[in-house]
Amino acid sequence: MNAIDRTIELLARLRERAPLVHCMTNSVAANFTANALLSLGASPAMIPDAVEAPLFARSADALLVNLGTVTAADAAVMKDAVDAARGNRKPWVLDPVAVGALPLRTDLARYLARRFPSVIRGNASEIIALAGGAPSSRGVDSSAPAGDAEEPARSLSCATDSVVMATGETDFIASPAGDELHVFNGTPMLSRVTGAGCAQGAVCAAFCAVAEGDAFAAAAASAFVVAIAGEKAARAAAGPGSFAAAYLDALCSLSGDDVKAYARAGE
Amino acid sequence: MNAIDRTIELLARLRERAPLVHCMTNSVAANFTANALLSLGASPAMIPDAVEAPLFARSADALLVNLGTVTAADAAVMKDAVDAARGNRKPWVLDPVAVGALPLRTDLARYLARRFPSVIRGNASEIIALAGGAPSSRGVDSSAPAGDAEEPARSLSCATDSVVMATGETDFIASPAGDELHVFNGTPMLSRVTGAGCAQGAVCAAFCAVAEGDAFAAAAASAFVVAIAGEKAARAAAGPGSFAAAYLDALCSLSGDDVKAYARAGE
Amino acid sequence: MNAIDRTIELLARLRERAPLVHCMTNSVAANFTANALLSLGASPAMIPDAVEAPLFARSADALLVNLGTVTAADAAVMKDAVDAARGNRKPWVLDPVAVGALPLRTDLARYLARRFPSVIRGNASEIIALAGGAPSSRGVDSSAPAGDAEEPARSLSCATDSVVMATGETDFIASPAGDELHVFNGTPMLSRVTGAGCAQGAVCAAFCAVAEGDAFAAAAASAFVVAIAGEKAARAAAGPGSFAAAYLDALCSLSGDDVKAYARAGE
Repeated sequence: MNAIDRTIELLARLRERAPLVHCMTNSVAANFTANALLSLGASPAMIPDAVEAPLFARSADALLVNLGTVTAADAAVMKDAVDAARGNRKPWVLDPVAVGALPLRTDLARYLARRFPSVIRGNASEIIALAGGAPSSRGVDSSAPAGDAEEPARSLSCATDSVVMATGETDFIASPAGDELHVFNGTPMLSRVTGAGCAQGAVCAAFCAVAEGDAFAAAAASAFVVAIAGEKAARAAAGPGSFAAAYLDALCSLSGDDVKAYARAGE
Repeated sequence: MNAIDRTIELLARLRERAPLVHCMTNSVAANFTANALLSLGASPAMIPDAVEAPLFARSADALLVNLGTVTAADAAVMKDAVDAARGNRKPWVLDPVAVGALPLRTDLARYLARRFPSVIRGNASEIIALAGGAPSSRGVDSSAPAGDAEEPARSLSCATDSVVMATGETDFIASPAGDELHVFNGTPMLSRVTGAGCAQGAVCAAFCAVAEGDAFAAAAASAFVVAIAGEKAARAAAGPGSFAAAYLDALCSLSGDDVKAYARAGE
Repeated sequence: MNAIDRTIELLARLRERAPLVHCMTNSVAANFTANALLSLGASPAMIPDAVEAPLFARSADALLVNLGTVTAADAAVMKDAVDAARGNRKPWVLDPVAVGALPLRTDLARYLARRFPSVIRGNASEIIALAGGAPSSRGVDSSAPAGDAEEPARSLSCATDSVVMATGETDFIASPAGDELHVFNGTPMLSRVTGAGCAQGAVCAAFCAVAEGDAFAAAAASAFVVAIAGEKAARAAAGPGSFAAAYLDALCSLSGDDVKAYARAGE
């Protein structure tokens, strides 16, 4: 089955099962992330306490760890939550925001990348930095062209045994087994809404929860769904504010037929 | 005076006085909660510091304590703030998010429920768990039918001497004196916007601030206002994103005549 | 060059350079603040960790310090970040939310006001309190008329060697050199959206990043841009929810011609 048909299947399954996604994410994106999951049909929860977070990671269907506003205290809880999720064979997604630019998140991202995330999702600068290249970004937005992240994504995937997804104008996904996919859908509007990339990490975790170990299919599904919903929303939007609302609407109304009609991909 | 006429009266008074509501709430819902209060005509403030929070609880017109993203450090501050509010005879509302599912919040919710909240607001799973039943939810969304929470709501109300409001498809409100109300208004859209339930807790606190001790009327007013604004917004919305904006618009424009025309309730 | 022509120039430069603005701001306003910066054309980042925040303040183009939900732990990090920004000659903006009403933020605001912020932005109550007058507000919204803040703004500007901007129905800006400006644009809708004032502080920091030391022009530009985008958005909005989305759209589409056509100011 190709990646597009698999996305249609996983989207239907996500809405049927409404997986519970534990989001350890940054304070700026938390609200939009929760709304994206709810609009799509998943069930979000954010549990930050040092004792509760690992317990909850054990019972939730998937875990997202996003380093956007991480502090030293959060870092310890994130490590415990990842161990708890792994101990219970729950999929988890790493979003190493601004790795390479600042020390706490760089050390933490490197540590967590070795704890077998199902998927590592980042922009081009982040994937390049985590793969060992020089950091090319000062802040949270990428300053590297999407294409520059392909070889780093491949090597990071092999080094970590994780699916790696470098998002940008084109999304590129690489698996340790050598599978590769380019998703050509998308809209520049998604980069004008804070947390849109962070929300994609959570959507990816939701798909991992229903993909029965096929993290490559889950990553591809998140890339198609986010990019096609974005394209639909951009058509109706007058700017970033109306786009953000239309994007949530589009995540909710997105159908398998939409995916079939709009998906543009290549290997 | 019946609950509907009383709601119209309290809505007018809330807009006249613009009560200051101290919201100790979760990081996901804080923004939407503040916007809901501002749209309705109240004045929100979130003051988390260990020294400032109790001081502010003394001077604000009402306090909301919502356990959605509570940590051990927050728990201590919440206890002090509740004591400060009570010491100054300020009404306060408890929203025991996900009580029963995780230990910190379960212990804290049980402790705070004995500190005489004016209103305890939760979904069916939360009210059942806090009343001593088995937890029926893994996350923050209810997995119990609304009707199953009625007997637990009654017993919890008697045990705590607080008004108890179990929200869901139908909202059920019980007072220690034996008053009961069902509010049949509402829309499933409210469950697709993160923090909509949390915002209702804050709206309830705002009504408590102007209800002069009549917590049952305040809870009823919050149930009517939230559910009717939701119904109005759902008519115009294309999905959860446009609904969230339309809901805030509807809280702002909601009139006493709207309440009169749309309210559907029973004892 | 007058303040209006200078605003047009700075707006074009901001969009060309997309300055990176480090926002140490409150949890309620963080999302809206980031979206306002992205919509306008700047690049936001929120880095709260005690080690990372000062490092990042050194490399970002400007720093915002907003005390809305400050805790004792945050206060220490804010002081270090301000020192780091100053050590690297980066402009920074102080938003002393609710100064005068509560002790931690009052002490911190007084300390930071002596650390040479480029601009101090507050509502009338906050400017009066920071200038040494009696606090006139219980919460985060101003209870003093805008005009009452003019003399305190002048004296605070001289005492701190900072530009001071008192925002409200009319915005008043005073510089240590004696420059003064009234901006008459605006809409009451901006006070019905949480964080709109906080976002203006961040927009001011973004303009400081491209104003080459002319903090008075940066403050004026932020006042014109926010107020005129607000006016444009209010025309299309049905209430606070649709206004917030339309406001972000308007920040994105706002042109130099709009500024020319709508700006109303006096000395």
